[in-house]
Amino acid sequence: MQRQQRYIAVDWGTTNRRAWLIDREKGALESYADDQGLLSIPAGGFEVSAREVRRKFGEWPMLLAGMVGSDKGWHQVPYISCPADLTALADGIYWLHSGAIGIVPGVCQTEGQADVMRGEEVQAIGAVALGAVGPDGLICHPGTHSKWVRMQAGRISGFHTMMTGEIFSLLRTESVLSSQMQGEPVANSSFDRGLEQALDGAPLLSALFQIRAEHMLSKRQLDGASFASGLLIGCDVRAGLATARPDDAIAIIGNRELSELYARAIERVGYRSHIVNDGDAFVAGMRAIVDHLDIDQETAP
Amino acid sequence: MQRQQRYIAVDWGTTNRRAWLIDREKGALESYADDQGLLSIPAGGFEVSAREVRRKFGEWPMLLAGMVGSDKGWHQVPYISCPADLTALADGIYWLHSGAIGIVPGVCQTEGQADVMRGEEVQAIGAVALGAVGPDGLICHPGTHSKWVRMQAGRISGFHTMMTGEIFSLLRTESVLSSQMQGEPVANSSFDRGLEQALDGAPLLSALFQIRAEHMLSKRQLDGASFASGLLIGCDVRAGLATARPDDAIAIIGNRELSELYARAIERVGYRSHIVNDGDAFVAGMRAIVDHLDIDQETAP
Repeated sequence: MQRQQRYIAVDWGTTNRRAWLIDREKGALESYADDQGLLSIPAGGFEVSAREVRRKFGEWPMLLAGMVGSDKGWHQVPYISCPADLTALADGIYWLHSGAIGIVPGVCQTEGQADVMRGEEVQAIGAVALGAVGPDGLICHPGTHSKWVRMQAGRISGFHTMMTGEIFSLLRTESVLSSQMQGEPVANSSFDRGLEQALDGAPLLSALFQIRAEHMLSKRQLDGASFASGLLIGCDVRAGLATARPDDAIAIIGNRELSELYARAIERVGYRSHIVNDGDAFVAGMRAIVDHLDIDQETAP
Repeated sequence: MQRQQRYIAVDWGTTNRRAWLIDREKGALESYADDQGLLSIPAGGFEVSAREVRRKFGEWPMLLAGMVGSDKGWHQVPYISCPADLTALADGIYWLHSGAIGIVPGVCQTEGQADVMRGEEVQAIGAVALGAVGPDGLICHPGTHSKWVRMQAGRISGFHTMMTGEIFSLLRTESVLSSQMQGEPVANSSFDRGLEQALDGAPLLSALFQIRAEHMLSKRQLDGASFASGLLIGCDVRAGLATARPDDAIAIIGNRELSELYARAIERVGYRSHIVNDGDAFVAGMRAIVDHLDIDQETAP
């Protein structure tokens, strides 16, 4: 990447996009978010869309990460295998426009259970750079597809994805439970009831049906959205913590509302956690990658 | 119900309807199925729809069961509480048209985990009447909402519902896994792989994502529909058998294809099972209820 004073970092996902103007010394100067994720970009439209970002921030070099590097994105960038570190991510960048625009690769796991990520790897590396997670820490990344990422000596050593957010959304919009699942999930007694059941090992497929049964029986006022959220997050956290070490303090990287629900679940199992802002982690990760590229250039023969 | 030589029994569900003309001595004479489930009946249209059934079979008394007795059906018939036996079901029938048409109540569970059923109770009672399950047997009823029903002294003593079929369908039609889940699930190596993982206790939310990851990595040819089916049925059966007794032989009441997948899972856990045709079980259950009504009438003062 051309070494200029500023560059633009973009977290370019399936539905949304967030962009930051970053000064090499001062850090993030400006940011904005829009709905120009992959689903909104017409075929062959990434050039035009990237130009729009530059129109806001100026003609700086750009570094992109997330689903923009997938088969549905601008250019399919091969995954880096675990264990994946900063060097591997920087070396795997795919360069467009003679190095003016780079796309950071995703990370895959081929040993054991197959898994893939695109975007979360930058945040994981960033959380370590920020000191928000230790070099051997455990990261929980809630979302449509939540990720549990194990770091080892500062590298992404392994991870697994849970379809928690997507299944919640399917149940809420398309299932027999829909009409009992309106409203946003909150940490109320229904959430805690679902959480307790999940942490006790209740089978998800059966426990969910209580929402329907209690409605039919008018048994009591169950907040279906919060109960289902508690159940699903409980299942997620129970599985995510299955390999945790007693001294792990889990770094939760995500938006505040959802992260707080996960924090509640993690605490209930007996682990400590702290929430790391996902935007901060992303910016820190991109800065770490750019710094690494700079060092590479300086030491090049 | 007027005591005539013949009557019509109807399993009237949300999406489909099946009707039988039953002779008191000879049993089922004729049957047919159509798509005139609750969703196809306009408001106030049950009278007309029932007349259509009689047009095929003649002006016989009718006994209806299933979702036709729900709040979305012809008339909401209160649930009978567990433990529920033949007497309770017969006494709970709601009579229309001066006793010419009856709607069998569903069964609810209010002790422990709340649960409800409408229609499966007739098949459970019928399976006992047929001798296909012992009076203390365990019944597995696969479907959109599968049911595991424990009989005790010939009564429905408790049950629980799993959202297995509905979640499979949501994943197949609406999720990020959809394009890898086309085709019907069959008992192939992908099914067995999903089944093994579920029976080993793999977390469903995480295991499902292998369908996506392996596709992205082009790792191997996974049949996503069969793998997901194996996973979900494995989770269902694992939970369903959690309270089974060592000598239980599970009666699976359902259609042949799905029942065979469940039988495979049940056998893998080490239990015996046998498949009972769901239509046969329903007819036997309705006959048992009608016989019971007749005895009641004979012994009435």
